Amino acid sequence: MKDAEQGMRRISSEIEDAGARRLTVEDVRDLAWGTAFLGSGGGGDPYLTRLMVEAELNQGKVIRLIDLSALANDDLVAPCGWLGAPTVSAEKLPNGEEALRGLAMLEEIKGRRVRAIFPIEIGGGNGLSPLVLAARAGIPVMDCDGMGRAFPESQMVMFNVYGQSASPVVVTDEKGNCVVLHTASNGEEERLVRALAISMGGQCHVIDYPSDGYQVKQHAVRGTISLAMGIGRAVREARRAGLDPFAGLFSALGASGYYGAAGVLFDGKIVDLERETKQGFAIGRVILEAFGSKSRMEVEFQNENLIARDADGAVRATVPDILSILDRETAETITTERLRYGQRVKLVGASVPPILRRPEALRLFGPEAFGLPGPYRPIEDLNQWRERP
Amino acid sequence: MKDAEQGMRRISSEIEDAGARRLTVEDVRDLAWGTAFLGSGGGGDPYLTRLMVEAELNQGKVIRLIDLSALANDDLVAPCGWLGAPTVSAEKLPNGEEALRGLAMLEEIKGRRVRAIFPIEIGGGNGLSPLVLAARAGIPVMDCDGMGRAFPESQMVMFNVYGQSASPVVVTDEKGNCVVLHTASNGEEERLVRALAISMGGQCHVIDYPSDGYQVKQHAVRGTISLAMGIGRAVREARRAGLDPFAGLFSALGASGYYGAAGVLFDGKIVDLERETKQGFAIGRVILEAFGSKSRMEVEFQNENLIARDADGAVRATVPDILSILDRETAETITTERLRYGQRVKLVGASVPPILRRPEALRLFGPEAFGLPGPYRPIEDLNQWRERP
Repeated sequence: MKDAEQGMRRISSEIEDAGARRLTVEDVRDLAWGTAFLGSGGGGDPYLTRLMVEAELNQGKVIRLIDLSALANDDLVAPCGWLGAPTVSAEKLPNGEEALRGLAMLEEIKGRRVRAIFPIEIGGGNGLSPLVLAARAGIPVMDCDGMGRAFPESQMVMFNVYGQSASPVVVTDEKGNCVVLHTASNGEEERLVRALAISMGGQCHVIDYPSDGYQVKQHAVRGTISLAMGIGRAVREARRAGLDPFAGLFSALGASGYYGAAGVLFDGKIVDLERETKQGFAIGRVILEAFGSKSRMEVEFQNENLIARDADGAVRATVPDILSILDRETAETITTERLRYGQRVKLVGASVPPILRRPEALRLFGPEAFGLPGPYRPIEDLNQWRERP
Repeated sequence: MKDAEQGMRRISSEIEDAGARRLTVEDVRDLAWGTAFLGSGGGGDPYLTRLMVEAELNQGKVIRLIDLSALANDDLVAPCGWLGAPTVSAEKLPNGEEALRGLAMLEEIKGRRVRAIFPIEIGGGNGLSPLVLAARAGIPVMDCDGMGRAFPESQMVMFNVYGQSASPVVVTDEKGNCVVLHTASNGEEERLVRALAISMGGQCHVIDYPSDGYQVKQHAVRGTISLAMGIGRAVREARRAGLDPFAGLFSALGASGYYGAAGVLFDGKIVDLERETKQGFAIGRVILEAFGSKSRMEVEFQNENLIARDADGAVRATVPDILSILDRETAETITTERLRYGQRVKLVGASVPPILRRPEALRLFGPEAFGLPGPYRPIEDLNQWRERP
C-alpha cells in the first residue's frame, strides 16, 4: 500500500476511533508479559515481537486499541499471526512486509478494506504481532482474540468451534511468496498451511478466519488484550512495590473473573529437557525437580505446554487450562523454545474461561485432541482448589 | 460452472473454432501412445487418463484441437496437468472436478474466460488430461505443450526458460481444496507446490504459467499434440500391417523433423529395480541385461528417465533427450511407475527439438540441473549416430 493511502486510512480511522485507547510503550511491555503467560508456553517468541512493536512506537507510529462495540456488523475484520514452530520464531526474523502483503491480498480478494485486526491467539509473540501490522497499516487492533490463550494448531480456535470457515486464508513469507487457500475444511487448512510453513523455513504469516463484525462479536474471546495488559501491569506494580510478583499475578487473574482459579503447581529446577523441531512444531517434555527433595513434575509440550504430571503419574493440569513455566525470581514466563537445563522455575496453572471448556470446544482442543488421556478435568478439580489458592 | 453456461461456451467456441480438428477415440489412443513415449517414462499414468478421455467422448462430449494460429495475442490461455509422483497417479484417481475448479478459479482471478488450454507437458497422462478438462468445460485444446516432453519439476518448462512467471498458480485436489499461489520465483513455485502435492496425498492438479496468446505463440513447443498422435498412428499402422512397430516409430520421429535422431540403445530384460516414492517424486534406477550375455545398461529416474549408462559407466543418453523403456513385443512405453522385474524391453532414445538444447534451456533441465555429470552431450553424438539409426 502506498504511504499516502496509509496516511489517509490512518486519519479517517483516527476520527472514527476517537474513543480508542492509544497504546504506550509501557502498555506494550505489560501486554508482552501477559501474552507470554496466557500463551501457556507457546505463541512464539514474545521478546523479539515486543521489540518490533516498540520500534514502531519509537518511530512515531500509532497503535489504537478499540472495543468490539465499535464495530458495525458488516465490517470486515481479520485475525492474524504466525504459524510454525516457536523454536524457529526465536531465530528467523520477519522482514516486516509479510503481514502487510497478507492484508493487502485479503483486501484484494474481498474487494474492500479491513476495518480492524486482532490476534488469532493471545499468546506469546502472536499476542503482539498484530500491533506491528496495525502500526504499519494504520488500522486499529481489536480487544479480543480467537483462542483465549495459544494453541499449536490453526483449527483450535473459537471461530472453528462455532463452525466458521477459515477460508480464504492468506499465507505469506519473507521471500515474497503469497498463497491464498480455499480449503475443504478447517482441518485441511491446518494440514496444508502447516506444510507450507515447513516449506517456508518453519514459519509463515497467516490471516485466516476473516470475519464480519457480527461474527467476531459472537465468536471471539473478548477483552483479552486488556486482560493480558492488566496482568502484566499487576505483576510490574507488585515488583515495583517490592511485593511477590506471583501474588500480583494471582490477584489480577482472580479479578479478571475469567481465568479465576490459578496457582503454583510446582517449584523447582529443570533437570531434564527434550525438545525437537519436527512436523512444523516444537515438541518435547521437560522434567522439574524440587529443591532439596526428589519430588518431580513432568510437562509435555507441542509448542504449548499440554499436560503436567506428578512423578506418580497423577495429572495436575491439561489443555485447555493454562500451564506456564515462569522464572521463579523474575516471574517472567519462559516460552517452550526458551527452556534450558538448570532454569529455576515455578510451574503455574490457571483455569480458562468457561467458553473454552464447553464440550464442542474440548472436542477441538481438549486433551483427547492431542492424544492425551481424557476426559478433560478442570485444573481446580485436579488440584482440589476450593478457593483461589 | 453451470451446465447452461458450459453449453453456451461450447456453442460459441464451436462457431469460433470452425476449423478445429474434432478428436476421435482413435486419435486419443494414438495420442496416448505418443505421450507415453515422449514422456520419457514420466507424466503419470497414460492408461487411466486415456480411459477418462474416452469416457467423455463416449458420453457425446466434444474435444476440439486448434492450432496456435487461431489465437488472438490477448487471448487468455492456460497449461494444465498433474504434479506429484507418477507412482501415486496409478492408484489415486481424480474425482474429475479438480481441473474444472482450477479453471474456474483462474477465470475468477483474471476476471475473464480462458480461451483454450493445453498440456504443460506432452508426457504420459499429463499429455492427455487437458482433453478431459476440454471436454467438460467446452473449450478447445491447443496443439502445443510447455516442455516438448515431460520433466519432473514444474520450473523445467519453456515458459520459465523465457522468463515468464508461473504465477498466479492454481492448485486443486480431490477433497475440494483450492490454493492460489503468487510466488517470489518459479523455483519457489516448484518448492511450495511440491509441498502441497505431498500434503494432498502425493499429487495435485496444477494450472500455472497462465499466458496470453502472444506468449504461448512465442514460448510453447508447437505442434506436439499432432506429433504425438502422428507417432502413435505410425506405430498402430505398422502393427496393423504386420511390420515392426519400432520401425514405424523411428520413421515417424524422423519425418517429424523435430525428434529426428532416434534408436534402440539396449534390448534386454529388467534384472534389477529400485523405486521409492519420496519428496513427491518416484525416484530410482533400473538395470537391464541383454539376452544371452552379461551386457548391462542402467537407467536412473526421477519420475522421468534421466540418464542411461553402459556397464562400464559410459553415458549413452541424458536429459533433456528422450529416454523411454518400451515393451519389446508390443512397443508400448512402460512409464516409470509401471516398471517391473523381468519385463522384456527395449530402451529407446530420441533427440529433442533444438530449442530444448539451448544453453538457457539446459540450465533448467540439462544433466547438471539433476545433479548428474555434465556438460550435456546430444544423444546422436554419444552414440555416434551419423544417420538416423
